[in-house]
Amino acid sequence: MKVEQLCIAARDASRALATLPRARKDEALIAVAEALDRRAAEILTENREDVKLARENRLPDAMVDRLLLDEDRLKEVSASVRALAAFPDPIGQIVDGWRLENGLELRKVRVPLGVVAVVYEARPNVTVDAACLCLKTGNAVILRGGSAAKHTNRILTEVVQGAVIEAGLPREVVAYLSPDDRRELTELIQQRRYVDLVIPRGGEQLKDYLLEHSRVPVVYAAGGNCHVYVDAAADLDKAVEIIINAKCQRPGVCNAAETLLVHEAVAAAFLPRAVEELKRRGVELVVDEATAGILADPSLKRATEADYETEFLALKLAVRVVASIDEALDHIARYGTRHSEAIVSDDLVAANRFTAEVDAGCVYVNASTRFTDGGQFGLGGEMGNSTQKLHVRGPIALDDLTCVKYVLWGDGQVRG
Amino acid sequence: MKVEQLCIAARDASRALATLPRARKDEALIAVAEALDRRAAEILTENREDVKLARENRLPDAMVDRLLLDEDRLKEVSASVRALAAFPDPIGQIVDGWRLENGLELRKVRVPLGVVAVVYEARPNVTVDAACLCLKTGNAVILRGGSAAKHTNRILTEVVQGAVIEAGLPREVVAYLSPDDRRELTELIQQRRYVDLVIPRGGEQLKDYLLEHSRVPVVYAAGGNCHVYVDAAADLDKAVEIIINAKCQRPGVCNAAETLLVHEAVAAAFLPRAVEELKRRGVELVVDEATAGILADPSLKRATEADYETEFLALKLAVRVVASIDEALDHIARYGTRHSEAIVSDDLVAANRFTAEVDAGCVYVNASTRFTDGGQFGLGGEMGNSTQKLHVRGPIALDDLTCVKYVLWGDGQVRG
Repeated sequence: MKVEQLCIAARDASRALATLPRARKDEALIAVAEALDRRAAEILTENREDVKLARENRLPDAMVDRLLLDEDRLKEVSASVRALAAFPDPIGQIVDGWRLENGLELRKVRVPLGVVAVVYEARPNVTVDAACLCLKTGNAVILRGGSAAKHTNRILTEVVQGAVIEAGLPREVVAYLSPDDRRELTELIQQRRYVDLVIPRGGEQLKDYLLEHSRVPVVYAAGGNCHVYVDAAADLDKAVEIIINAKCQRPGVCNAAETLLVHEAVAAAFLPRAVEELKRRGVELVVDEATAGILADPSLKRATEADYETEFLALKLAVRVVASIDEALDHIARYGTRHSEAIVSDDLVAANRFTAEVDAGCVYVNASTRFTDGGQFGLGGEMGNSTQKLHVRGPIALDDLTCVKYVLWGDGQVRG
Repeated sequence: MKVEQLCIAARDASRALATLPRARKDEALIAVAEALDRRAAEILTENREDVKLARENRLPDAMVDRLLLDEDRLKEVSASVRALAAFPDPIGQIVDGWRLENGLELRKVRVPLGVVAVVYEARPNVTVDAACLCLKTGNAVILRGGSAAKHTNRILTEVVQGAVIEAGLPREVVAYLSPDDRRELTELIQQRRYVDLVIPRGGEQLKDYLLEHSRVPVVYAAGGNCHVYVDAAADLDKAVEIIINAKCQRPGVCNAAETLLVHEAVAAAFLPRAVEELKRRGVELVVDEATAGILADPSLKRATEADYETEFLALKLAVRVVASIDEALDHIARYGTRHSEAIVSDDLVAANRFTAEVDAGCVYVNASTRFTDGGQFGLGGEMGNSTQKLHVRGPIALDDLTCVKYVLWGDGQVRG
């Protein structure tokens, strides 16, 4: 019952928020940014508590790092809230419109979804990002973070709620569900009457759990098994830069590359150079027979089926030589997760085939897969990257937290 | 396994279809229309068999009527296929595009979803509509109709497949699943790997079944509990025309009105006129106390909570007097199913409040709710009306059978 009450309160608050003018929402965002700056010391104290517990519980270093806030990181968070306030308001945008034959004036107008639940793991910046993206788009939000970030998330939610109240909005536009009781999560994702959307930000396990139990529509921000294909007509200098960036610039994220596919016509010229640079950066390789032959390095491990299927999220890369672009396309169709895929080629025909035939959210020609990001695309932030096809594909940005409404003005039209 | 094989074949066929130029798809549609005309006699023979069985099984008259095809209806179907062929192709449309700061050229391009499964009941025209809308949008389709239309659906699918093959496309772009085995339906809606979307066209029971069992994303074409609100500032002549049209023009469909809300300031002037016209058309009324008082008709039944919640789909209407537009908005928020809602008013403030605050797919000012329809909106047909918020709201038309892909062209960009 407690969870249902929380959802009903969020739904009621969302009605007031839906028609709020832009200025009121942006005032609230600025108030959030100021409160984050003002209460930085309190926030960092709570965060140290989470980090201490995480170390005691021997959580992996990467996870502790994602959990950790410091003054610089907190300043980045408040700066991104200010940037969001300066961004145009998607709500009220007339997406399309025309006059029907009978004179009815039709407009397709962007409106908020209503209530959005965000279920996430240990990254406390998501608390602020999710709350502010929803505020900007006129949606009430229900935050359900991971238990490792419990203290940080609680204080951050309090700070956001305080600013929201200060700006004259009901506290319930930003609701918080404690991570202590897993049954409450299950209840939350079944509140179809009151919650319009669930966005999970976590691993495949969380995704599978929601797939099984959610009765609320879900947008999955899921993993990326991304490829860079170096074509026969590739500029090899660019190809080296691109695979290094796609693999090494930030290996732990979903838009990093996991497999390098190389056309056999350039494999002998390209692979030794690329591999030298990759190894210098500490990248572990798993390779097919052809690559091993070209590199003449018996210490290299062979890539297995499982390797091709794995999102390493680490300095590890599978390498395979292909006989044609068709073989590359087949490999990507088979192993890719429809996230981000790149071709390096100066051949227009190859580039066109690749962009037309690869079924993925983001397809690149002569650029790193690492650009798949709402901020990089200029969309004013994001809530992860969707690998699904319904509602949103690619960065989940402001427009994707809205829906549309048809509004039709007439003067007595009836249907004949 | 049989169902999985069917889905894999559809997925393979969809890859070829995805990049097919418009002319090839439209040729296939024209071939379908011609085959429907040419094989009309065969189709009508099979349909008579279904109708005979339906009568023997004592199916309701309304259902037998939906099942029945005759020469005129079949001509309408083939004419609508020809109209669809003449309609612009949504695939390849550049929805948006810009240049990033680093010079990457970004385009957001409309692409097919892949494989769409349509699960429907006894209306054989859906077989042709669904197949042709999917063909136009480059999607493979899996048709799973109701058992009452079994003979008709089988011959219609054969006719469509024949035309598709004639146009040089693989038969598997239009797949047919027999209605004989319910377990096969359950299997179908769990093929998340191969099926991108399920669209049910049927009652609430089918919807609930999918909600529980589908692991494939679903767009629900669900029922409509629609309202007409006659405001204090309504033109009462128009209001009479609109409620008659919304209730009586075709009472068995989702965009017909089920409840009439009348502002108390005009109730005494409006209700006697409206009720006389409604009764003359055989409409049964259930009313609140205030309406009963004004009409001074003790034979009128009182409206219950259940009446306000019911989509009658018949010549039956609930009537309630409200003290203000707020009361009307609250009633609609409480009982409406977010389908189609109308206000009759010449007051700009009231009309603006109604269109802003009503949370529904289609909101009308001074017009009948009956216009909610892809054809009426000029969208080239539809697959029902969505009352959900994700992906599509209102008529499910051509654009809604597509998704987008970001395509980015660069010259060596890497992320800093």
